[in-house]
Amino acid sequence: MLLTETLLDTFLDTRKRSETLCAPLETEDYVVQPAEEVSPPKWHLGHTTWFFEEFILKAHDPGYRLFDKDFSFVFNSYYETVGKRVVRANRGNLSRPSVQRIYQYRKYVTEHIQELFEKKPDASLWKLLETGINHEQQHQELLLTDIKYILGHNPLLPIYSELIPEHSPEAPDELWIPVADGVYEIGHKGKGFCFDNELGRHKVYLEPFEISAELVTNREFIRFIEDGGYTRFELWHADGWDWVKQQGITSPLYWHLIEGQWHHYTLNGLKAVDADTPITHISYYEAFAYAQWKGMRLPTEFEWEAAQSLFSWGQRWEWTESAYLPYPGFTKAPGALGEYNGKFMVNQKVLRGGSIATTPGHSRPTYRNFFHPHERWQYTGLRLAR
Amino acid sequence: MLLTETLLDTFLDTRKRSETLCAPLETEDYVVQPAEEVSPPKWHLGHTTWFFEEFILKAHDPGYRLFDKDFSFVFNSYYETVGKRVVRANRGNLSRPSVQRIYQYRKYVTEHIQELFEKKPDASLWKLLETGINHEQQHQELLLTDIKYILGHNPLLPIYSELIPEHSPEAPDELWIPVADGVYEIGHKGKGFCFDNELGRHKVYLEPFEISAELVTNREFIRFIEDGGYTRFELWHADGWDWVKQQGITSPLYWHLIEGQWHHYTLNGLKAVDADTPITHISYYEAFAYAQWKGMRLPTEFEWEAAQSLFSWGQRWEWTESAYLPYPGFTKAPGALGEYNGKFMVNQKVLRGGSIATTPGHSRPTYRNFFHPHERWQYTGLRLAR
Amino acid sequence: MLLTETLLDTFLDTRKRSETLCAPLETEDYVVQPAEEVSPPKWHLGHTTWFFEEFILKAHDPGYRLFDKDFSFVFNSYYETVGKRVVRANRGNLSRPSVQRIYQYRKYVTEHIQELFEKKPDASLWKLLETGINHEQQHQELLLTDIKYILGHNPLLPIYSELIPEHSPEAPDELWIPVADGVYEIGHKGKGFCFDNELGRHKVYLEPFEISAELVTNREFIRFIEDGGYTRFELWHADGWDWVKQQGITSPLYWHLIEGQWHHYTLNGLKAVDADTPITHISYYEAFAYAQWKGMRLPTEFEWEAAQSLFSWGQRWEWTESAYLPYPGFTKAPGALGEYNGKFMVNQKVLRGGSIATTPGHSRPTYRNFFHPHERWQYTGLRLAR
Amino acid sequence: MLLTETLLDTFLDTRKRSETLCAPLETEDYVVQPAEEVSPPKWHLGHTTWFFEEFILKAHDPGYRLFDKDFSFVFNSYYETVGKRVVRANRGNLSRPSVQRIYQYRKYVTEHIQELFEKKPDASLWKLLETGINHEQQHQELLLTDIKYILGHNPLLPIYSELIPEHSPEAPDELWIPVADGVYEIGHKGKGFCFDNELGRHKVYLEPFEISAELVTNREFIRFIEDGGYTRFELWHADGWDWVKQQGITSPLYWHLIEGQWHHYTLNGLKAVDADTPITHISYYEAFAYAQWKGMRLPTEFEWEAAQSLFSWGQRWEWTESAYLPYPGFTKAPGALGEYNGKFMVNQKVLRGGSIATTPGHSRPTYRNFFHPHERWQYTGLRLAR
Repeated sequence: MLLTETLLDTFLDTRKRSETLCAPLETEDYVVQPAEEVSPPKWHLGHTTWFFEEFILKAHDPGYRLFDKDFSFVFNSYYETVGKRVVRANRGNLSRPSVQRIYQYRKYVTEHIQELFEKKPDASLWKLLETGINHEQQHQELLLTDIKYILGHNPLLPIYSELIPEHSPEAPDELWIPVADGVYEIGHKGKGFCFDNELGRHKVYLEPFEISAELVTNREFIRFIEDGGYTRFELWHADGWDWVKQQGITSPLYWHLIEGQWHHYTLNGLKAVDADTPITHISYYEAFAYAQWKGMRLPTEFEWEAAQSLFSWGQRWEWTESAYLPYPGFTKAPGALGEYNGKFMVNQKVLRGGSIATTPGHSRPTYRNFFHPHERWQYTGLRLAR
Repeated sequence: MLLTETLLDTFLDTRKRSETLCAPLETEDYVVQPAEEVSPPKWHLGHTTWFFEEFILKAHDPGYRLFDKDFSFVFNSYYETVGKRVVRANRGNLSRPSVQRIYQYRKYVTEHIQELFEKKPDASLWKLLETGINHEQQHQELLLTDIKYILGHNPLLPIYSELIPEHSPEAPDELWIPVADGVYEIGHKGKGFCFDNELGRHKVYLEPFEISAELVTNREFIRFIEDGGYTRFELWHADGWDWVKQQGITSPLYWHLIEGQWHHYTLNGLKAVDADTPITHISYYEAFAYAQWKGMRLPTEFEWEAAQSLFSWGQRWEWTESAYLPYPGFTKAPGALGEYNGKFMVNQKVLRGGSIATTPGHSRPTYRNFFHPHERWQYTGLRLAR
Repeated sequence: MLLTETLLDTFLDTRKRSETLCAPLETEDYVVQPAEEVSPPKWHLGHTTWFFEEFILKAHDPGYRLFDKDFSFVFNSYYETVGKRVVRANRGNLSRPSVQRIYQYRKYVTEHIQELFEKKPDASLWKLLETGINHEQQHQELLLTDIKYILGHNPLLPIYSELIPEHSPEAPDELWIPVADGVYEIGHKGKGFCFDNELGRHKVYLEPFEISAELVTNREFIRFIEDGGYTRFELWHADGWDWVKQQGITSPLYWHLIEGQWHHYTLNGLKAVDADTPITHISYYEAFAYAQWKGMRLPTEFEWEAAQSLFSWGQRWEWTESAYLPYPGFTKAPGALGEYNGKFMVNQKVLRGGSIATTPGHSRPTYRNFFHPHERWQYTGLRLAR
Repeated sequence: MLLTETLLDTFLDTRKRSETLCAPLETEDYVVQPAEEVSPPKWHLGHTTWFFEEFILKAHDPGYRLFDKDFSFVFNSYYETVGKRVVRANRGNLSRPSVQRIYQYRKYVTEHIQELFEKKPDASLWKLLETGINHEQQHQELLLTDIKYILGHNPLLPIYSELIPEHSPEAPDELWIPVADGVYEIGHKGKGFCFDNELGRHKVYLEPFEISAELVTNREFIRFIEDGGYTRFELWHADGWDWVKQQGITSPLYWHLIEGQWHHYTLNGLKAVDADTPITHISYYEAFAYAQWKGMRLPTEFEWEAAQSLFSWGQRWEWTESAYLPYPGFTKAPGALGEYNGKFMVNQKVLRGGSIATTPGHSRPTYRNFFHPHERWQYTGLRLAR
């Protein structure tokens, strides 16, 4: 854990950053939910606040008065322990509480947290604060990608801002990093913060492999498209092929073919696709099909972790071949916080790394992100292994 | 048609009334679409404006410049002739254009219409203006009922205002009005405005019947509920029974049973149900089942029109037994305006009368409203015949 | 009612005809249900038998022993009064009871009915027998069209038999029959059998109209197709256009374009479409769009009944513009038989006439058939009015 | 590979066994498909035959004439390479080809295979024959479980036969087998037949663990039910809990609570549940929830394989915690046979062992079966680890 003074500063910075991310929005942009996996920005602002209220203030501050007793119902996400919740698919129907009132709620909770921690409470409370900060940082990434989805699916394609540059050319050289076989240690160690799904450091035997030093770029992915990648069933999983057919998928998310030239919606507006930038907004199914087409494969999450110090990462969340499963000895925390990760350990794939939407300092070599194999509204990408 | 000076005043009043109806809303309330048949208030405000722009300014004012060329796509409803349109189910995802910008659009179009008509154009243009006014009045009713749906499905159940009183006791006496058999004339006559579906005045032979002078009240409908009305299949159409089972319907829309007492959400907030007020927010299926339970029936639209001068009406749209079909000699107007009514003449039932949400002066004895038999978010009601 | 001796003969003939219609089938053909509105032939054979058992033998023959107590559950159709039923969509999963056992059931019930009626019971029982016969005749038509659907959707396109010729050229001359305005009497009169939905003979005022002496032919319908009829939204109802788009409809049911020539599956196998034969297997939506394209309309059921003696009919069930509604004074019979017709009087359109699949003698000028506007697996057709 | 004479005998035995399994069926039972994952028995009989025809006779016997050219379309399963296929959900609509004709097809292909192999062709062809035999054995298990599903979902609950006894008491003693940590070799070795997904023998590091010598029994599972296991969300994955809620799951498949006593449909008819017999027909979600309730977990497939010689297995397919993923170095065979396994390596869980429905000799310690986590119509079961 960080020193406590620093942690309170990090708390205040984190709270502020969520609001900075929303600064370019119109009030109306906070409200809508154009797909089930996308949450309205106002919900993220409220939910991250509710987390601090529910698990710290309500539980540990005897004098605390709830800002609004209905908010527990509205801003609870999946914590079945705590009470009934608003179904995720319906969040886009909540015009009230208003955006203004949610900002009041944020201010109220932030101030009460600050007061509480200025009294130097004991270590277990600082631990909860650190969890809340990391929780809000996780939501900052979702907030940004949800904003992109909302604006990128509006027929007017509004510009968000120039603050998040999506173009970042990758070195064009193809470089393969060999890794020897043997037993490797996997999982978090040390005293720094981590989520429960990273715990249970354990040994994994790896066969020898090579991993690419570079992410796959738009140039390479366009070759896959032009070679008929989206029409050749033999490159795809059966479930992936069903997804391609039923959804009519012919390119990554946000891509538009305009007069023979690929463009994509970015937070900076509609732009021509830059060939040297790493591909993004692809599903696991697409990442797998691309690897099949190259005659290669995705790394497992263990290979990625064992090799990660040998290449640079952090622009794209990288799909791995690994299913999201518990590490040996994984146990859920008691109570509602125990619902954080364990209940999602089926039907999902692990991603490693981090992205341009990740709050700086939030990720680490042992961080395990996870999504369903068809999801692609995050800044997902792809690194090959062989 | 009204005198032209009066018509321009009516135009300005109508434009203003739409905005007055929205005055109690937060910006966020303008955006959401919690059910497919419900449109966001901002969409109503834009669509009614687009109608004047598309059919009058764009077509007949040579110097007119479009406010925004994208608005034709965003605010077109079902006019396939005019260009591709935003699918109705997706309207709730349109955070842009913003509410503020739509108000600017309204002001711009209203002013251009005013300028154009102050030049005293010829009669055909006045006729279009009258159509546009009536179109906006129709949407005012939808606007108000959609607002009710949005607020009434928010877990906070916010109050809209006290301006629209929903409680209006009905005389408790049961009074039956006999009507003799014979040939009656049905349909609009005279020079006043009407929609194309009222034209084609024609003869209809009616068998003798009696019609109730009063609408069915909440008191009577609660008796139906308490007598197991929602659980007795023999009272329902097969399609109605499927609807009851699949949707889990056990009471009118907006009703909540709280500690043994029926309450309902009104625009004035959550209130105890008033026994003497006419029942509302029921589907045709429920109206039919109620009539079966009473051993009576609904009137046809022809019976209603023949008898309407003998009772008072205007609080509830009244379901009839008639399917929505063209009158003899009905022909569609050429072009996009021809899509106004004719294309809906299948699978719907006719309602007659008007409601507390109807713009004063908008309805008339020959007015034909129509909805699918399961819809009930309008102020629908029920009058018995036998 | 027919003389009783004749009626018993008609009963035996009707029972035999159902089995004759199934003679060309393999056992496997009796079992499947390729669409929700299609019932397996074995179900028709069982259900028509159960009707006699349930309403005559079980109710009026004190010594009768049920053939199998489970059959009431399996072969009940929509009679909610009588007990829980097999959901229509699941009938195709019933491998048992076997076809052989259902034929034993038929024999058992036929013999017991014969014994019962040879004892000359009173008139009310003969009336029930007549209803049962007409019920089985109705199912014979469904049986044949369901067989066509089952074989016509099998990739091997097996031939049923040559017994039902589908080609029957229509006189090519265009002949319009004028009918004067006035009050006409509509509905069944006399002592012959009719269904309850034909009762309540009543007066209807008709405006003057003309009706075609001929059904629309394949030649004319192909012109509609070639003129882009299935791609021009302005010819369709909004609901019809949704149906065309969602189902990808581009021709009547069973039509295949093979090397530039229209073919269709008939009970005699796959054949080239004969230009002079009346069009069939079209939905109400298609019939309406065709009429729009011609600048004409469909007759109402009242116009059809008033004019029917002036033209020949019986090859195709003819869509009318009329919604299926109760006649004045319609009342449901008490008990399960009351569910026969009344509960379907919403969301359906009336067809008049009869088809090559109709049991000879079963239809009459006042007969009202009804289907949902998208259904087209019956031998439906089209006659124009103006 | 087996000696060639023996292999031809095994071929003939396998062909005969499929037909013996169908001997108790009525013709109608061969046709139906009551759920998407269930195939009609006639389809299994045809598909396993088509496999020999397509990959051996058509490809390697120059004089061979196809039995029926349409069968390739009808009996192809998921082999996109070979041509378009009948969608799995539609197999239950195929009344033709008839059962009798499929038996003729079986005889024709069996005889041609026999003739071809009596000529002693080279080794690659024997290898294909061995694959075809194992493919048919796999389908024999599905055939039996599909028959159970068809009969077990018929309201008459017909008895299949007494040949497959489902009751087989397990030793009641609780016995835990400890396994030391270390590097273990996983995957097939030797010359015997295996599927491609077992190849790529590789090292896996295992932490120390204990595995139960016994399968979980009905007695223990009933305790889970009685302790509210199906109503306690904290025991379930989020996806599993959605499945429980949406499907209304309250017990294993085929279970019925009759007068307070649990019964289940077996191939021997409806029986009281035997407490000492291993639980079966549960999904992965249920297996996981049960393990959570016990405070234990499922073994991984690697743990199971490392320990399997220390306990007896073969009554139930056993769910593991492992996702179905490729072993290191896995590559797909070229052409259609390459579609056999690899394309399914996402969204599924691995099962190990074998069941009472498995053809004797078909499974082995390295055999990997796989199903989606909600599927439970196989004889699935559960062994705990800790």
